[in-house]
Amino acid sequence: MSPKITTELLKHLRQVMKNPRYVQEPVQAYIVPSGDAHQSEYIAPCDCRRAFISGFDGSAGTAIVTEQHAAMWTDGRYFLQAAHQMDSNWTLMKMGLKDTPTQEDWLVNVLPEGSRVGVDPFIIPADQWKRMSKVLRSAGHDLVPVKENLIDTIWTDCPQRPCKPLITLDLSYTGVTWRDKIVALRSKMAERKVMWFVVTALDEVAWLFNLRGSDVEYNPVFFAYAVIGMNTIRLFIDGDRMMDPAVREHLQLDSTLEPEFKIQVLPYGSILSELQAVGAGLSPKEKVWLSDKASYALTEAIPKAYRYLTPYTPICIAKAVKNAAETEGMRRAHIKDAVALCELFNWLEKEVPKGTVTEIVAADKAEEFRSQQKDFVELSFATISSTGPNGAIIHYKPVPETNRTLSVNEIYLLDSGAQYKDGTTDVTRTMHFGTPSAYEKECFTYVLKGHIAVSAAIFPNGTKGHLLDSFARSALWDCGLDYLHGTGHGVGSFLNVHEGPCGISYKTFADEPLEAGMIVSDEPGYYEDGSFGIRIENVVLVIPAETKYNFKNRGSLTFEPLTLVPIQTKMIDVSLLTEKERNWVNEYHQKCREVVGAELERQGRHEALRWLLRETEPLVRVQ
Amino acid sequence: MSPKITTELLKHLRQVMKNPRYVQEPVQAYIVPSGDAHQSEYIAPCDCRRAFISGFDGSAGTAIVTEQHAAMWTDGRYFLQAAHQMDSNWTLMKMGLKDTPTQEDWLVNVLPEGSRVGVDPFIIPADQWKRMSKVLRSAGHDLVPVKENLIDTIWTDCPQRPCKPLITLDLSYTGVTWRDKIVALRSKMAERKVMWFVVTALDEVAWLFNLRGSDVEYNPVFFAYAVIGMNTIRLFIDGDRMMDPAVREHLQLDSTLEPEFKIQVLPYGSILSELQAVGAGLSPKEKVWLSDKASYALTEAIPKAYRYLTPYTPICIAKAVKNAAETEGMRRAHIKDAVALCELFNWLEKEVPKGTVTEIVAADKAEEFRSQQKDFVELSFATISSTGPNGAIIHYKPVPETNRTLSVNEIYLLDSGAQYKDGTTDVTRTMHFGTPSAYEKECFTYVLKGHIAVSAAIFPNGTKGHLLDSFARSALWDCGLDYLHGTGHGVGSFLNVHEGPCGISYKTFADEPLEAGMIVSDEPGYYEDGSFGIRIENVVLVIPAETKYNFKNRGSLTFEPLTLVPIQTKMIDVSLLTEKERNWVNEYHQKCREVVGAELERQGRHEALRWLLRETEPLVRVQ
Repeated sequence: MSPKITTELLKHLRQVMKNPRYVQEPVQAYIVPSGDAHQSEYIAPCDCRRAFISGFDGSAGTAIVTEQHAAMWTDGRYFLQAAHQMDSNWTLMKMGLKDTPTQEDWLVNVLPEGSRVGVDPFIIPADQWKRMSKVLRSAGHDLVPVKENLIDTIWTDCPQRPCKPLITLDLSYTGVTWRDKIVALRSKMAERKVMWFVVTALDEVAWLFNLRGSDVEYNPVFFAYAVIGMNTIRLFIDGDRMMDPAVREHLQLDSTLEPEFKIQVLPYGSILSELQAVGAGLSPKEKVWLSDKASYALTEAIPKAYRYLTPYTPICIAKAVKNAAETEGMRRAHIKDAVALCELFNWLEKEVPKGTVTEIVAADKAEEFRSQQKDFVELSFATISSTGPNGAIIHYKPVPETNRTLSVNEIYLLDSGAQYKDGTTDVTRTMHFGTPSAYEKECFTYVLKGHIAVSAAIFPNGTKGHLLDSFARSALWDCGLDYLHGTGHGVGSFLNVHEGPCGISYKTFADEPLEAGMIVSDEPGYYEDGSFGIRIENVVLVIPAETKYNFKNRGSLTFEPLTLVPIQTKMIDVSLLTEKERNWVNEYHQKCREVVGAELERQGRHEALRWLLRETEPLVRVQ
Repeated sequence: MSPKITTELLKHLRQVMKNPRYVQEPVQAYIVPSGDAHQSEYIAPCDCRRAFISGFDGSAGTAIVTEQHAAMWTDGRYFLQAAHQMDSNWTLMKMGLKDTPTQEDWLVNVLPEGSRVGVDPFIIPADQWKRMSKVLRSAGHDLVPVKENLIDTIWTDCPQRPCKPLITLDLSYTGVTWRDKIVALRSKMAERKVMWFVVTALDEVAWLFNLRGSDVEYNPVFFAYAVIGMNTIRLFIDGDRMMDPAVREHLQLDSTLEPEFKIQVLPYGSILSELQAVGAGLSPKEKVWLSDKASYALTEAIPKAYRYLTPYTPICIAKAVKNAAETEGMRRAHIKDAVALCELFNWLEKEVPKGTVTEIVAADKAEEFRSQQKDFVELSFATISSTGPNGAIIHYKPVPETNRTLSVNEIYLLDSGAQYKDGTTDVTRTMHFGTPSAYEKECFTYVLKGHIAVSAAIFPNGTKGHLLDSFARSALWDCGLDYLHGTGHGVGSFLNVHEGPCGISYKTFADEPLEAGMIVSDEPGYYEDGSFGIRIENVVLVIPAETKYNFKNRGSLTFEPLTLVPIQTKMIDVSLLTEKERNWVNEYHQKCREVVGAELERQGRHEALRWLLRETEPLVRVQ
């Protein structure tokens, strides 16, 4: 991977930062956040402005360009990748390390007195605007909205915004009709005494209307906004997608409906003016509910006194708790996914020793096996197929320049997943196709102990996920080891592979309590720069736990693994496991045998079945 | 404990809430917070306004009185106590439970439109004012400062503010002179580009000047403020305490000093006008540093643009990291404290079967033994001496109405500590003087497992204490049990027994990372309402840990128990302990034998020594 040469681009950007065609007064700094106008994590090519200007294309990062500097903030997952992809014009700001300044503090430090800091008001979330503008103002600077995106002005070959056909999901997949979702939403609105709700996140629009799209790779979403009133529904969406008879039928666009369920379809680009009209027409006490992560532009459309902002929207919270149809769908999707991975690992075991399997070949093969499964739609994220030192690049994606050949001498880490019409998967397995060293086994076993500590944890109803994060680290900490990422994220149901409001991370405190029906990942790891990476990831469902006692009648929760892919026993130093941990592995593997074995049998995949049976032999106690 | 009858008092308060002598316009609600003008946790009798109006005298709670309602917010430690002490005029608001509204939400719900909510601006912290006034304003109400404290106007026999003599601490206790502390503070101020620092917390004033007082029971502090400039030192303090030659000498009040170390002594009551004068004289860019928990009144004295507010002050952070002199002092104090408790438990073992020892007698006896130790000053908090069901009242203090007799049939919980001139102690032991039931032993053992899990935890440098909280709960959670309080608090060095900025609790996120030299408590528990309470508490010192590996060269930390008092082995179900846990107990007891044994020997306390040796026999593995 050679870095992108950005000298000319930065020169060009610094020119437009002073060009009166785009800015009323020159801006001394320009912020290029990661997201799009919906604050999406995964974005369409036309929204990859930060990658365009810097070369760094990881999923998280914020660039700031001043007259003298160009700096990039990103987190531990991307330190190595960002360092590889950016040229010497850029300074890497390692978030999470003690001495790394915040963006605001850095700006205050480098800017000349009375500077103007520009940002696209459609891209920056309102909460971030508020925080930054406060710090900047108190240091004598100004955060200013720049209506025309300055990156777009210099991005001559910027791709078009996608506008792909929609998929309708029936009740067997969603469990609840969009009408009932609107009813539930309005009842939440009534509870909080708000008259309007603005849906800005793409997965929330998709979930609410039981529609899916493919405008953004890996995330089955489509560019749209919605504004829900107590008696009106407005959907802002472009293209001829609303001409599709299946979609018209699904949304009952041509039926005679009670007026409060009649969907008014409006152009995507009219959201700001429509919202401004709503804002202008509000009578006292008529509040408008928005996520505090909605864009500054949309938030400003509603006069401050009328805004009701929350970190998590009622849709986000409802979406996280999967109903029976969704849970069953997720189970089915994970069984199919396990079938594909059993095929893959069986194939890899045979092929790797020949020395012809590269990271890209392995990733493509994984996709091939997945695509053979029923209701497969696409991958749920870019496959992390990494061997040896590439495994230490936490969110690595193989490209021709970095593509290594798998061998019997290196650890192989595969983090991959798919979108099926019935569910979303995300699984990481770390394998050795030869003989792992004692040290590699030791590290793998600490990671496994952390994985089990979370997966088998029992905790009271109402516990927030961040309180479980240290369980995943304890075995590593005991030996002075750790990993620089969170332990788990919420997973959507045929939706985004990363979703809120729950998760398992030391980094958040504002996560919502875990509830039965929520689905998160459990993925501790250990990474040694330049050598190897280890991660063990299952997607797990929050379920009620039976306990001996029941303090204050609160009830307890635990996790049930949905992912059912063998954990390579060759990598385990069994002497480091407690009896409880050994039993956990054996019971997990027994379940893989039963459930995935039956499906392999049904699909006539006998060789993969033999591989599964071999890989799930019980661990025996060592003395 | 019979509740305080508050009908007349509340009637009287509601009258003054409308009396133009005290309020410009009537207030529809009046907030009575817990603290004093320094936001102290422990307060002088004259500041116990919330206890006066409600009867509830726990250490934490906020009362709000409206025309129709009187409500009290307090946390899990005090649910039972508050319910006992308050009459039916009061509604108990159980903080931490899901359905309990915040004070702001409750006010918005009960108040008539456009209400005024009054509060003493000297008592309410600025951060709380900000939060409340924002919510109230957005609901159409106003938070208004009421200069004259309305409780004081109806509290006819309010005691006088104390003004007791000061204690000076020399270098052998403090390790650093007050001059060097001022130098270090000014260097922190220079780093942040602030010109003034306002010291509002009583323990911060005491620490900064190496002085102690006894104005507040249990906390060796004195009523004072300080304002530190880059070239000036102003100390606001009343009484003739500054006439004491030892104090004058200590502060070098009569010496010829460089002007920047000359202390200007001013009346306590002049802080507001002096600070207003500072505020009025600021030139641009001259910032004033205050804690965001300083009172609203003092914060408002500085124009907003000139304020620099942080959750933790540089004094709070420096004070938390104990130097070698302080650490050695804390060690000495804990050895003396252990001697006193060995004497006490030996005595209790003989006396309890006679049926003559009440909770109060036991608490007095504990104080008697402690007072025999060198440099004993006073207790560090009200002794929690509780047997049977009283043990479930988490912050119970025995009074004649509740005083139970210790017996061989009930669990006895003693949470006690002292102020010695060389250190502060805080220790809880749970004992049975007869034969505990299997269930009592089971619960005790889960609590012990939690205690050990924290005490023996190894974690990376920079870890915040709240990330360790779940370790203390894991064994309880596994069986469906839990406790409704945090796991640990910072402990001062001959200062407040509760201090920031570190601690171990699921409730905080803004705690500062643990550093070697910090001192916290480790005190998980389990409480069964109406039956018993169990808590095992040691004060522990954060120390560097040796680990097999050292990820990113970060270094690791762990804890060293300073408390060296036997944990009753009779209460332990050894079959529930892992080998590692059993070894921890045995090594801990071995250290108690060696260190405390030697001191008991030195003090000629042979009977207590025999008790110690008996109580610290190693646990033997059960099959």
